[in-house]
Amino acid sequence: MPRIMSKKAIILLSGGLDSATILYEAKRKGFKPYCLVFEYGQRHKKEIIQAKKLAASVKAPVQCVTIAMPWQGSSLLDKRMKLPKRKVIKEKEIPSTYVPARNIIFLSFAASYAEAVGAEAIFIGANAIDYSGYPDCRPEFFDAYRQVMKKGLKTGAEGQNLKIFTPLLKKTKAGIIRMGMKLGVPYELTWSCYKGGTKPCGVCDSCLLRAKGFEEAGLPDPAL
Amino acid sequence: MPRIMSKKAIILLSGGLDSATILYEAKRKGFKPYCLVFEYGQRHKKEIIQAKKLAASVKAPVQCVTIAMPWQGSSLLDKRMKLPKRKVIKEKEIPSTYVPARNIIFLSFAASYAEAVGAEAIFIGANAIDYSGYPDCRPEFFDAYRQVMKKGLKTGAEGQNLKIFTPLLKKTKAGIIRMGMKLGVPYELTWSCYKGGTKPCGVCDSCLLRAKGFEEAGLPDPAL
Repeated sequence: MPRIMSKKAIILLSGGLDSATILYEAKRKGFKPYCLVFEYGQRHKKEIIQAKKLAASVKAPVQCVTIAMPWQGSSLLDKRMKLPKRKVIKEKEIPSTYVPARNIIFLSFAASYAEAVGAEAIFIGANAIDYSGYPDCRPEFFDAYRQVMKKGLKTGAEGQNLKIFTPLLKKTKAGIIRMGMKLGVPYELTWSCYKGGTKPCGVCDSCLLRAKGFEEAGLPDPAL
Repeated sequence: MPRIMSKKAIILLSGGLDSATILYEAKRKGFKPYCLVFEYGQRHKKEIIQAKKLAASVKAPVQCVTIAMPWQGSSLLDKRMKLPKRKVIKEKEIPSTYVPARNIIFLSFAASYAEAVGAEAIFIGANAIDYSGYPDCRPEFFDAYRQVMKKGLKTGAEGQNLKIFTPLLKKTKAGIIRMGMKLGVPYELTWSCYKGGTKPCGVCDSCLLRAKGFEEAGLPDPAL
């Protein structure tokens, strides 16, 4: 199938496994990726460093946006709060790592960036299975956001609707890993651990989900 | 009528005439205002200084959020672009002062701030009459955004919908000024001019709209 490489897409890139996968998925779909990386007071900078390496692996431009949210309110941002360590996140429970309006904010910058560079799509690695506790990872949230962009953007008002792709929304972590392996995602460059350091801690929720994913996919984690 | 002062509202405050009016309108409605001021690369800092003075006039806390949008794309942000000087903005035409996704971004931070402080409402001074060219000032945009907050926020998922108040949406500039005068808004503290300096330029779109508003309201502009 011939690929037209002129279509542009904004990729919300975090340095984690999921967003690395959508970067390569966007390329497979024939988009020229423009990566958008946020620095929003994460506990460590490792994620951002890895995000830039991932973008470089496909020669994609990167915009890094620093966001100050002085009001905090999440254990991912607030170093005084304990990180969750329980293996199972209870259904319907919103974890303490929830950052108020995080995906709402991320998509708003992605929409702005998309208009500025003339992109026609946004890729976001949200997942409604492993993170079912986050309201801003649910399909109905993205449907609502598509309407916001249709009504609130110049491009939308002019009839060119900016698309939001959520290719991982209904996949298990193992499913994402299998998909990424086929796409040739360099998972050794990704970082999932909530903590910084040189090696993943292995005990935080994110480490456990990643380990379970590779185990279920029957593949070794190239980052370990 | 007794007023319950425990309800909190986030006020998107710019230092201009419209947002000053909604700050006082929120107070009238019995809300305790929490002001949110953005520094997003405006051409001048005057607006921000005046916003802080307005917040102080009602003893409201202020959060100032700095946003870097490196991709620019608006004459309000890009000093190389000319500001529009024509008196009449043509219907359906999107002016060059349009900032991609500006209100989408502002509301996303307001939603985050609201969750962090437990506010139940956001006030935004958007106007669909004088700024009919901006897609993110239209009623259908705000309706779409309400859905995003309902679906994407923790409070929304838990059934407490964050309200968006747009009390100026269908008012003329003269109508806003008459409303504000009744509320006791100190318009001498507001700044509308797209340029900085000590006196308004008197020729930019924003100065002309303001002058026309005071003229039609039959009132002198206390800032002149």
